[in-house]
Amino acid sequence: MKVVTGIDQMQMVAEKARCAGKKIGFVPTMGYLHEGHLNLIRRARQLSQLVVVSIFVNPTQFGPQEDYQSYPGDLTRDTRLSQQAGCDILFVPSVEEMYPKGYCSYIEVKGLTQVLCGASRPGHFRGVATVVTMLFNIVKPHLAVFGQKDAQQAIVIRRMIRDLKQNLEIVVVPTVREHDGLAMSSRNEYLTPQERAEAPVLFRALEWAGSQISAGERSAKNLIQGMTRMIEAGERAEIDYISIVDAAQLRSLEQLDGDVLIALAVTFGRARLIDNLLIRV
Amino acid sequence: MKVVTGIDQMQMVAEKARCAGKKIGFVPTMGYLHEGHLNLIRRARQLSQLVVVSIFVNPTQFGPQEDYQSYPGDLTRDTRLSQQAGCDILFVPSVEEMYPKGYCSYIEVKGLTQVLCGASRPGHFRGVATVVTMLFNIVKPHLAVFGQKDAQQAIVIRRMIRDLKQNLEIVVVPTVREHDGLAMSSRNEYLTPQERAEAPVLFRALEWAGSQISAGERSAKNLIQGMTRMIEAGERAEIDYISIVDAAQLRSLEQLDGDVLIALAVTFGRARLIDNLLIRV
Repeated sequence: MKVVTGIDQMQMVAEKARCAGKKIGFVPTMGYLHEGHLNLIRRARQLSQLVVVSIFVNPTQFGPQEDYQSYPGDLTRDTRLSQQAGCDILFVPSVEEMYPKGYCSYIEVKGLTQVLCGASRPGHFRGVATVVTMLFNIVKPHLAVFGQKDAQQAIVIRRMIRDLKQNLEIVVVPTVREHDGLAMSSRNEYLTPQERAEAPVLFRALEWAGSQISAGERSAKNLIQGMTRMIEAGERAEIDYISIVDAAQLRSLEQLDGDVLIALAVTFGRARLIDNLLIRV
Repeated sequence: MKVVTGIDQMQMVAEKARCAGKKIGFVPTMGYLHEGHLNLIRRARQLSQLVVVSIFVNPTQFGPQEDYQSYPGDLTRDTRLSQQAGCDILFVPSVEEMYPKGYCSYIEVKGLTQVLCGASRPGHFRGVATVVTMLFNIVKPHLAVFGQKDAQQAIVIRRMIRDLKQNLEIVVVPTVREHDGLAMSSRNEYLTPQERAEAPVLFRALEWAGSQISAGERSAKNLIQGMTRMIEAGERAEIDYISIVDAAQLRSLEQLDGDVLIALAVTFGRARLIDNLLIRV
């Protein structure tokens, strides 16, 4: 495995690989890799001949009160883990080269980014869309692999790719969970033992909603009330949102119908955790 | 010369050409080609092995009161002229494929786009940056050729390319003028004979400013006053703006210093004309 830090060098390597007929699979990450990331890398390995993983903690997708400065990292461990998972090139650009002095270009995906996490984190998806576009322009992948845990992110990026004619395919991989259902996240690191013990309620609430829907429930209000009750039964959970939306436009639903996304964000102490359930009704 | 209308097909042709080692030169236009456009195409011909010219009247860069609906076009003539100038592929996408239902992704180049034409035409450069990015993603050029007449456009695009790591080079070609100095423009078509007779005052005013600067004048105010007087001496000119800015950041200058852009926009009847002088002081 090769570690590349320069943008020019990465672009040259990518161009050469494309012209040699190699399919490039790309996994963008913010590092501090966990089993969820490694699963994305393994998927890219199956689907392509050159696997590029990027590690870049992107400042523009964090709000001023968020955890950019304290976001966890361990490049030595990440290097070992990504190599084991099948990565060929680890791309680790610097903030200075990604956002040089006078930087002023941003991508907005309107409509899809004002709801769910976009409502609680203004500017977040602008930062995500912008950095992902930069990374696509540098890594020149044929396909990019994202996790279902960040459901809105995958939907926003898919729309952006379609709109801007970015010539690549998106693959979305199911969320990897701990044995008790908690979705893997670099931010689980922030949880105290008590918070960690309580956090699996998010998955249980989603599972409960899924079973209610299977039993015929179609009222978003009833489902949200039930999930709220379950989550608020704990001492440490603070609900940011629980939303039920259509999976294409992310518009709030009253009655469930078609492809439905049940998404939630809940804070436990320092950790803001997200999870979701995508379900065809 | 080949005419391509499908986005997928253009992407395939471009990818194949890149991998065959051909340098792709690109000239994006809104059609109704004049000698200025042909000059861009000839420059692309000199610099590359595959010359792609696009013709696309981009709705998102026109304001609601502007001339999108009436923008002139003549595809038969454009086809002949671009072939003669050395074009290999004429790319003519449809509005429906470029902006499909539900389109919502836009590129903003902050700071550079709120001044000069951006101030008079809100949203204009957002539309330009967005469509140019789409076209870059489709045509995959190594270099793109733009005209100095649209000075702010060239500066905005250069910044966007740098920021978003779009992997290509920009070449800016001097403005082509009529025998009396009027900058070539598809919108000159709108001028009545009286307006046409008056319009060369724009170039004369810029030339006057250049000669004043050569003679030692450094006050932006004096130069703008002089140019305003010259242009307002006519009966039909309505000044939109005359600005003197630094050529990198487009910030207004009081005292001229360094690389300076003198830019103006003036309306004659239906035609809003622009012109500029780039000068090192």
